Amino acid sequence: MKTSDAARFRRGDLSCSECPSRRILDHVTSRWGTLVLVLLLDGTQRFGALRDRIGGVSEKMLAQSLRLLEEDGFVSRHAYPEVPPRVEYSLTAMGTEIASHLHVLAEWVEANTVRIEKARQRRPARSPRASR
Amino acid sequence: MKTSDAARFRRGDLSCSECPSRRILDHVTSRWGTLVLVLLLDGTQRFGALRDRIGGVSEKMLAQSLRLLEEDGFVSRHAYPEVPPRVEYSLTAMGTEIASHLHVLAEWVEANTVRIEKARQRRPARSPRASR
Repeated sequence: MKTSDAARFRRGDLSCSECPSRRILDHVTSRWGTLVLVLLLDGTQRFGALRDRIGGVSEKMLAQSLRLLEEDGFVSRHAYPEVPPRVEYSLTAMGTEIASHLHVLAEWVEANTVRIEKARQRRPARSPRASR
Repeated sequence: MKTSDAARFRRGDLSCSECPSRRILDHVTSRWGTLVLVLLLDGTQRFGALRDRIGGVSEKMLAQSLRLLEEDGFVSRHAYPEVPPRVEYSLTAMGTEIASHLHVLAEWVEANTVRIEKARQRRPARSPRASR
């Protein structure tokens, strides 16, 4: 369905390529999107603090992820009229809901990383010919 | 940390850019990765059935996602020596664990898509100049 048709539907459908739920899922499960949302569960944070806590993120990518999450209504942004400028981010009520689910997922991945890596090393690599 | 060092650590750390947990999270939260894992909660499925149930996925992208999930140990692949070839996929025990978490996330997104889209339409667009 088209974005403008969303209000006519009661529920998103991730199996449908035109459904806006796809875009929402992409934003919250993007690498930086997930990490930002989970970190904001700790409370309001400045841009620089988020950047420092997320290894390897560029300011550009972090700003872009935050803007998408703000547009989706998961994150609220507060710019204080100070010099130097202070910009803080926090989760909205809806952001807290989705971040809680992502937190469970992230915790599971962290807790199982060693198990997954060990199993990968034991497993023989699959032939690249078998494409299905 | 380097992949080969994984076994020395007791737990992954998603905030660290070198940690293999990052790659695992990327695979399971990629658009097709998430949808494949959630659909496989319904049980063993053929490649063609997965392709048909996921709107917009190409065979190449689906095959690539399945291969990554197989390498991570989330999906098992069974090729039957038949003509035409029959290839089936199912979740491993570990795949069922992560798929259950992704299912909660996907359900939340589908259930809240209309609410998110309505809120987006009410909200004024942010100035593109404010990059943080």
